Amino acid sequence: MTLRVLLADSIAMGPGKADLLEAIDKTGSISAAGRSMDMSYRRAWMLVDEMNRCFKTPLVTAAKGGAHGGGAQLTETGQQVLARYRAMEAATKQLADAYLGEFSDVLATTPAPPSKAGADLDHAG
Amino acid sequence: MTLRVLLADSIAMGPGKADLLEAIDKTGSISAAGRSMDMSYRRAWMLVDEMNRCFKTPLVTAAKGGAHGGGAQLTETGQQVLARYRAMEAATKQLADAYLGEFSDVLATTPAPPSKAGADLDHAG
Repeated sequence: MTLRVLLADSIAMGPGKADLLEAIDKTGSISAAGRSMDMSYRRAWMLVDEMNRCFKTPLVTAAKGGAHGGGAQLTETGQQVLARYRAMEAATKQLADAYLGEFSDVLATTPAPPSKAGADLDHAG
Repeated sequence: MTLRVLLADSIAMGPGKADLLEAIDKTGSISAAGRSMDMSYRRAWMLVDEMNRCFKTPLVTAAKGGAHGGGAQLTETGQQVLARYRAMEAATKQLADAYLGEFSDVLATTPAPPSKAGADLDHAG
């Protein structure tokens, strides 16, 4: 189950962007966050830029680099959006899992082998 | 948001199979249900067979054809599984929509144009 927050044709928030926000929050750097996700700096930057462009205020701010690099951090909005997305994910997954449990009494333990077409379901049916 | 009930590598229930079950219930025929979904009889039959093989008892039964064709209908299990799946779909969608509403205050009305890389997010960040 994948939840995405769409704005026009842009993905404002989704599983990958949420993971990237967490990595930036942890590493304090877009490039380090990208590396931790086996993602090029450019790819990570593009995702951050897409997120930032979808919200009234940026989710990530980065200081100018210079000799020792700038570093990046989540804004208050970034922290809020990440928390809300994770809450939405957890709640919907918990609900879906609860419903999925209702199928356990009728589901087979393993799928039966395919039937021969027409064997028990006639073509006229 | 797409919810699927998986059993091993088989999809026991999903959006397309749920629609097919409803069409069979409405038309009383696998072939007519398939036609109503622009699906070949063979495709519809394969989906029904996959569903039936994933549950302890079949979701769909079809009488032998003969001159006037057999017809098909949902079993009690088929009715139950369809109802549970639709309930799971509705509940999770309602919950996700409620959470999505929480983003409206921070989302932009439309995405801003792409930034030039490095313009406000330094490569060292």
